[in-house]
Amino acid sequence: MVKRLPNILRGIVPPMVTPLADRDALDIAGLERLVEHILSGGVSGLFILGTTGEAPDLSYRLRYELLERTCRQVNGRVPVLVGITDTSFVESVKMAAKATEAGAAGLVLAPPYYFPAGQPELLEYIERLAPELPLPLFLYNMPSHTKVFFEPQTVLAASQIKNVVGLKDSSGNMVYFHKLRLTFENRDDFTLLVGPEELLAEAVLLGGHGGVCGGANLYPRLYADLYNAAKAGDLAKCRKLHRKVIQISSTIYSVGRYSSSFVKGLKCALSLKGICNDYLTDPFHRFKAPEREQIRQYLAEVESDM
Amino acid sequence: MVKRLPNILRGIVPPMVTPLADRDALDIAGLERLVEHILSGGVSGLFILGTTGEAPDLSYRLRYELLERTCRQVNGRVPVLVGITDTSFVESVKMAAKATEAGAAGLVLAPPYYFPAGQPELLEYIERLAPELPLPLFLYNMPSHTKVFFEPQTVLAASQIKNVVGLKDSSGNMVYFHKLRLTFENRDDFTLLVGPEELLAEAVLLGGHGGVCGGANLYPRLYADLYNAAKAGDLAKCRKLHRKVIQISSTIYSVGRYSSSFVKGLKCALSLKGICNDYLTDPFHRFKAPEREQIRQYLAEVESDM
Amino acid sequence: MVKRLPNILRGIVPPMVTPLADRDALDIAGLERLVEHILSGGVSGLFILGTTGEAPDLSYRLRYELLERTCRQVNGRVPVLVGITDTSFVESVKMAAKATEAGAAGLVLAPPYYFPAGQPELLEYIERLAPELPLPLFLYNMPSHTKVFFEPQTVLAASQIKNVVGLKDSSGNMVYFHKLRLTFENRDDFTLLVGPEELLAEAVLLGGHGGVCGGANLYPRLYADLYNAAKAGDLAKCRKLHRKVIQISSTIYSVGRYSSSFVKGLKCALSLKGICNDYLTDPFHRFKAPEREQIRQYLAEVESDM
Amino acid sequence: MVKRLPNILRGIVPPMVTPLADRDALDIAGLERLVEHILSGGVSGLFILGTTGEAPDLSYRLRYELLERTCRQVNGRVPVLVGITDTSFVESVKMAAKATEAGAAGLVLAPPYYFPAGQPELLEYIERLAPELPLPLFLYNMPSHTKVFFEPQTVLAASQIKNVVGLKDSSGNMVYFHKLRLTFENRDDFTLLVGPEELLAEAVLLGGHGGVCGGANLYPRLYADLYNAAKAGDLAKCRKLHRKVIQISSTIYSVGRYSSSFVKGLKCALSLKGICNDYLTDPFHRFKAPEREQIRQYLAEVESDM
Repeated sequence: MVKRLPNILRGIVPPMVTPLADRDALDIAGLERLVEHILSGGVSGLFILGTTGEAPDLSYRLRYELLERTCRQVNGRVPVLVGITDTSFVESVKMAAKATEAGAAGLVLAPPYYFPAGQPELLEYIERLAPELPLPLFLYNMPSHTKVFFEPQTVLAASQIKNVVGLKDSSGNMVYFHKLRLTFENRDDFTLLVGPEELLAEAVLLGGHGGVCGGANLYPRLYADLYNAAKAGDLAKCRKLHRKVIQISSTIYSVGRYSSSFVKGLKCALSLKGICNDYLTDPFHRFKAPEREQIRQYLAEVESDM
Repeated sequence: MVKRLPNILRGIVPPMVTPLADRDALDIAGLERLVEHILSGGVSGLFILGTTGEAPDLSYRLRYELLERTCRQVNGRVPVLVGITDTSFVESVKMAAKATEAGAAGLVLAPPYYFPAGQPELLEYIERLAPELPLPLFLYNMPSHTKVFFEPQTVLAASQIKNVVGLKDSSGNMVYFHKLRLTFENRDDFTLLVGPEELLAEAVLLGGHGGVCGGANLYPRLYADLYNAAKAGDLAKCRKLHRKVIQISSTIYSVGRYSSSFVKGLKCALSLKGICNDYLTDPFHRFKAPEREQIRQYLAEVESDM
Repeated sequence: MVKRLPNILRGIVPPMVTPLADRDALDIAGLERLVEHILSGGVSGLFILGTTGEAPDLSYRLRYELLERTCRQVNGRVPVLVGITDTSFVESVKMAAKATEAGAAGLVLAPPYYFPAGQPELLEYIERLAPELPLPLFLYNMPSHTKVFFEPQTVLAASQIKNVVGLKDSSGNMVYFHKLRLTFENRDDFTLLVGPEELLAEAVLLGGHGGVCGGANLYPRLYADLYNAAKAGDLAKCRKLHRKVIQISSTIYSVGRYSSSFVKGLKCALSLKGICNDYLTDPFHRFKAPEREQIRQYLAEVESDM
Repeated sequence: MVKRLPNILRGIVPPMVTPLADRDALDIAGLERLVEHILSGGVSGLFILGTTGEAPDLSYRLRYELLERTCRQVNGRVPVLVGITDTSFVESVKMAAKATEAGAAGLVLAPPYYFPAGQPELLEYIERLAPELPLPLFLYNMPSHTKVFFEPQTVLAASQIKNVVGLKDSSGNMVYFHKLRLTFENRDDFTLLVGPEELLAEAVLLGGHGGVCGGANLYPRLYADLYNAAKAGDLAKCRKLHRKVIQISSTIYSVGRYSSSFVKGLKCALSLKGICNDYLTDPFHRFKAPEREQIRQYLAEVESDM
């Protein structure tokens, strides 16, 4: 059963981590528990095969398996969005076809991330790719990992393409986000989501449409509540929940060194809560005992007044 | 007459542009008009010799003159903060002495900006410098221009020094800002101000203490109103004024290429409004006629529904 | 027939462009001509599926086809090196198996290029991957595209692994290259090749073992001659040929904007010389008529005194 | 007595460290010893108040004193070049006047280093500044510290200005250096010097005119010999001396963390050899005992086969 993308997507769309049992094997029971855990939290969609999902590090075989199993498990309860970001145009098209077949509702695309493209090259790339995709497409601005920014003019031009329906901004640059909001203020059909969960409160308070919050793997209700509070203008609640989000970011995501700390911390916490395995694919690896113990303590602190 | 820094500085502290008549001459009448214009807008302080003030590009002689004239003109109506950022420790100390003598209320310090220092080096630098300063000190995080970030641990350690009373964050990185807020949530005496005016609304809505908004040279009341609305939790007003701020940023500050667009646009607008000369020091120069005409149109648009 | 990697690889190993007839189709006749053209120039090996080969942008199907056809065409005349760089460990292992099967002599690996790994993570990655590879492995330092540098200590540690036999440095940082040379001065079995052809002369004059010169697709003899002159210490010849290399770089590779200029210029020149098609995969595209005409003129200039 | 700049400057021009007794006091005896030590090594000039001289970190008073004392000590034996790089145009002009008065032979200018200028802004800046300078001017490309690159077209345009006579490139980017060499191959009057001493050998072997080698404070003869060997095409000697240069860089300059290691190591070594004090200005400080002991051992190793 397929849940089509609503005309206007709003709210929390968690970027699901990929539960792994081994380098090339899904943690199948963990995946089922994780999907149920997330859906229980009042989210508006589910985004798989993104950065938090370690997509580029997975074999294609495993990506296809994850896609099928997740869509089957979700079974139309919320729309499933699928990352098709790839350095290869042909592999992106193939992944889009698989996603459509499996019953996904939409696609998410960051720029090809090996060669840094200029803006005209990037626009031409989207103009050629979008017509080959059978589903609505979200652009995904992720300059720290792709080296390339979707400049506002490029987004505006791309938004003229029929199936380009929104953008997820993970740049962390709220000046950029606000300028996009102003550019699209009369385009309610063009959805603007924010990536870093630490910025969810302000993005929604000031007109953004929702967030793709990694922490919603762990505490989906927290982020959904924060979204709802921000949308309703309940500032007191917003501040309280935002504080919790920053606390999570300052503790659970900050145990390791290097940029892998976020996914490592998140998977470790999910494992400690019995939801899924914390296996990470190369080049990363799960936390060892001391870091795991630290995460356990942080979880207790975070949950003490939740 | 000196206005001492209040124990707890809150609100809008505009970073004043430096009105120039020539490469090494102040526009003295313009300076007087500008100070009066800004003070009429309900601001909480005045920050001179910062980035918006083109401080590093001015001769020391002119910096001292600006300092004296501004303090005299303000005459204790609001506290005057003075940038002492310098690559030379000795020159920073000297500027601080001059500021004290002139009646300034506080000092502002970004890292030395030629050699990029490591965090321990940066902390040691502050630990040596602060005791030599006769006034309260704000740290100034400005990585795009100084190459160096004030890491949260460095800020925390520096905040133990007696006269270090706050930080102005111009990184544009709100994740960082929120983490600092959480770190200092029980330290009401440590003031956290945000630099980019596009981020004022969210910074204050989520607990920040105010902003150092360049646009307050032009429209001081707009930023003061936005601060007050955010502080009071008047979200509807906040969104309306925030939209205006983003409109200004997307138009008046975006005419030229290069990072000099902001100051060029701001000075051009001030000149068009008859407040002060738009002369810029080297390596920059005022806009020519076509850009000036563009700014004139943008001003009309911005003010049409103000 | 397989040409095994010599114990000590030295000389010019051109990174072959991938002749394409369409987005997912090889230019088969062009590929054959190109291989013959390159081999006629006195090169020491052939490197396929690297950056110049647009490898990350090709479908896996096409990569495998290229691999088989190239090895068959080369037929053991020189060792074939195959890029196995991938964000996915599993796909790298698979590509290595295919390469071995096809008769390749060695493998080339840059860091996974989506998530930026820390140095310990990077070393652990190589330590896990190398034992799964049936052929000798060259590391490939390419920070502009992978975001990650192989720090000297990481290279030193990795060089202890049995089948890690050398490094290709495309950082353009000759201080780094010289330091690596000193580190490995008593390790003649560890081959150090330089990537940017503009640095071939100095790399070899000062002890490096050769170069992976993109221009050798076009003028293989020029780079082989330069290598031989540098190795023989014929400085006059070296300067003359180096000048030609810089002239090529300043003209043929500098027609377009953006970082794609190099491959675009190279493929355009190969097309003009009737060697192979100049089709480029997305997100890039071949030069249009005006740029092509410019390249034609540059070719004439370059060849006027060759 | 003044030594005017020769029409065509060639060879080694050491960037002198600034011997300090305290934060704002010269080590006068050390300065005299250092000048004599350097001049005894066969150098072609002396460059003061550059990056190695910690110029931006010194008070202006001390800069002027250093300028006068150095020129007096050198007494026309070699041309003295003086860094006038400043964020303030007016201070650059003032320093140039002081330098002229003191008997300097030339000036050295990197881009203003607080605000990053665009290339047209940078060119206009030089076009306005150069006519105000009474001495020949070298451009100084130092992007790691100034954030701005002198693009080749900017250098070419600037070289049309009467008193712009050369460029010192400290980018470490030899592709850039070689392209500049080709651009200026028929302009023997435009001197191209390389900054990083690790690149001296190749720069001169391939047509560059000399180097501004920090290590020549310590071992002036080594760098002068290397320059002469490279210029004479004595490749065997060149390789031997180049190896020593890389050894120095890999040991003495690599003791500390952070980018300050180079100057710290150099001053420590000079102190150990009894030449001058190792005091460094803020934000940096001299090595403590353990690092000093490490440098002592490295010195012994370096000198064991010199």
